[in-house]
Amino acid sequence: MQPPKIASFQPPRRTLMGPGPSDVPRRILDAMARPTIGHLDPAFTDMMEQTKTLLRYAFQTENKLTFPVSGPGSVGMETCFVNLVEPGDKVIVCVNGVFGGRMLENVKRSGGVPVVVEDAWGRAVDPAKVEAAFASHPDAKILAFVHAETSTGAQSDAAALAAIARKHGALVIMDCVTSLGGTPVLIDAWGIDAAYSGSQKCLSCTPGLSPVTFSQRAIDKVKARGTPVQSWFMDLNLVLGYWSGEGKRTYHHTAPINPLYGLHEALVMLAEEGIENAWARHRAQHEALKAGLEKLGLEFIVPEAERLPQLNSVTFPEWVDDAAARARLLNEFNLEIGAGLGALAGKIWRIGLMGASARRENVDDCLKALAAVLGK
Amino acid sequence: MQPPKIASFQPPRRTLMGPGPSDVPRRILDAMARPTIGHLDPAFTDMMEQTKTLLRYAFQTENKLTFPVSGPGSVGMETCFVNLVEPGDKVIVCVNGVFGGRMLENVKRSGGVPVVVEDAWGRAVDPAKVEAAFASHPDAKILAFVHAETSTGAQSDAAALAAIARKHGALVIMDCVTSLGGTPVLIDAWGIDAAYSGSQKCLSCTPGLSPVTFSQRAIDKVKARGTPVQSWFMDLNLVLGYWSGEGKRTYHHTAPINPLYGLHEALVMLAEEGIENAWARHRAQHEALKAGLEKLGLEFIVPEAERLPQLNSVTFPEWVDDAAARARLLNEFNLEIGAGLGALAGKIWRIGLMGASARRENVDDCLKALAAVLGK
Repeated sequence: MQPPKIASFQPPRRTLMGPGPSDVPRRILDAMARPTIGHLDPAFTDMMEQTKTLLRYAFQTENKLTFPVSGPGSVGMETCFVNLVEPGDKVIVCVNGVFGGRMLENVKRSGGVPVVVEDAWGRAVDPAKVEAAFASHPDAKILAFVHAETSTGAQSDAAALAAIARKHGALVIMDCVTSLGGTPVLIDAWGIDAAYSGSQKCLSCTPGLSPVTFSQRAIDKVKARGTPVQSWFMDLNLVLGYWSGEGKRTYHHTAPINPLYGLHEALVMLAEEGIENAWARHRAQHEALKAGLEKLGLEFIVPEAERLPQLNSVTFPEWVDDAAARARLLNEFNLEIGAGLGALAGKIWRIGLMGASARRENVDDCLKALAAVLGK
Repeated sequence: MQPPKIASFQPPRRTLMGPGPSDVPRRILDAMARPTIGHLDPAFTDMMEQTKTLLRYAFQTENKLTFPVSGPGSVGMETCFVNLVEPGDKVIVCVNGVFGGRMLENVKRSGGVPVVVEDAWGRAVDPAKVEAAFASHPDAKILAFVHAETSTGAQSDAAALAAIARKHGALVIMDCVTSLGGTPVLIDAWGIDAAYSGSQKCLSCTPGLSPVTFSQRAIDKVKARGTPVQSWFMDLNLVLGYWSGEGKRTYHHTAPINPLYGLHEALVMLAEEGIENAWARHRAQHEALKAGLEKLGLEFIVPEAERLPQLNSVTFPEWVDDAAARARLLNEFNLEIGAGLGALAGKIWRIGLMGASARRENVDDCLKALAAVLGK
């Protein structure tokens, strides 16, 4: 077989203002390019312990079992479901966008019995509906919801939803892929039992890692399972031997060394900034972007009180050719914004202000580019 | 919560001669540090198509469905099993080390009925036993074996094993984590239906990606399944929408952009060298290492005809304190070699000559360091 003649890849420089990945600071990219060492090297395992400490800060939790899963956010999601849902478990799952739908799919594939609470795409999950679902299904063992719906930009009241589940003795699984680091995520204060996020959103790292955290209640449920976890790779009973840091570290799989250097650096930067400052920065840039978008006549699909600052979903005028407009933004302005997903495909744009992308220069560049494309 | 005061991580420089990760060339690390772009950016999807072409060359296959799974080798393994094994399927699984054992675990968790063919750790899989297993279980639908056992350094005769399966109308799943790029892996010539590898072995990239390839027979089996694939993330029916390159690319998960830059570069380097030259280089460095190890009185555990050039497992004198010796290699010589795994823990060292680590300087440094530790 002849070797293909393919040159090294030189990516264009883009400004990333879609639903993730967000702009990755040079400091994080440089960290990823440091020399590779072994995954059982004491220097590496020390770094892992630091990463766990830093992640606890990001999640605002004391949970010992807090670590990055070696895969994208979808693997973090599946890790939560395959471990916590046992065949036959009733799970109340809230669907108000694509990622709630993906949770539902995970409940089914884990052998759970889903009870679906539906809300309109672009709206928060309605706590009254969740309360009603528990009233009809007092035997529900788990409540699952998306804190920050990446497909719509709607934020749900995680504290209220978790409190309902707690009252009914159910565990809580929360998707905070798009919220972690951009808007308050308070695992312990809210009483969340399992949460998963992604490295490439408000943490501004490259995609491929999924920070997760589990409460003691969650660990107890996993340890008490009567059936084995269906996934070998995601089985927390096995993963724990490597990540728990208790006693001898057991080989499970080869950790993605260099991406973990990058995540460590992203978390060091978050700690340096202070998480409250990061939240305030996302909020401030959102206010600036919002004012500009409204001036351009673009309307938000999410009511103001339910809006995520870091993900702005707007409709565009009917005369606009969606794909052509986004292609022009990319080719003329090197600007990436997000298309609509699922039921909202072709109907909205999703403009991200996540992590390092949440800065004034990006807001200004984006507004200028949009004005040009909209002929304003 | 107070932010933790943790500094940026500066890894030590190591020479990596364990069972992977291997030394990662600066060229690959630099590629990983290029600016992040979106996973649906046309520039990125073009790069993905190139990566598929380059991987076909590495696997020596025309298989259309050849791509890197967004996770470590263990996820590649699980992807093969959860897709190809349907509940109740009889699977002949060969166990001659840790990774054959992991295959067995995957068969069980996928609902398959395993028929185990056992061979001693340190030996190749015996084709006669596989033939006998098919004779006793003519209804077996799949044969699964490890081409290059990373826990022992034994290489099995993949062509012979696959031919037996073909004769009995069974599909073949092959682990080539440690062989791909280091020793011939001929997917099409051997008639392998599903194979998975890792980025961090003879491809010399950082860990975290798992190249896989599937034959049309394998795809047909996945498409004809009567039961859904238990994993959402690994379900090839869904993954295909993103990686197949046919028609519109559908969002499935956010691909690990920068690690994929690294893999692309590693594969460009392999094509530049020529895969036959890479195989010859691994063989030549093995011969040099072997001569030196024998001079030091270290004995190989694998019979010569069954040895992998890129992974050299040797016993060490009884008086040697395993952990202390390896710690000294690491601390005084910045050299990582591998410990024994599973039943061989504390009994052997595994010395890797994979990818960029397979060069004369590494061999010489390693032999000098071992001589010092052994007091020679």
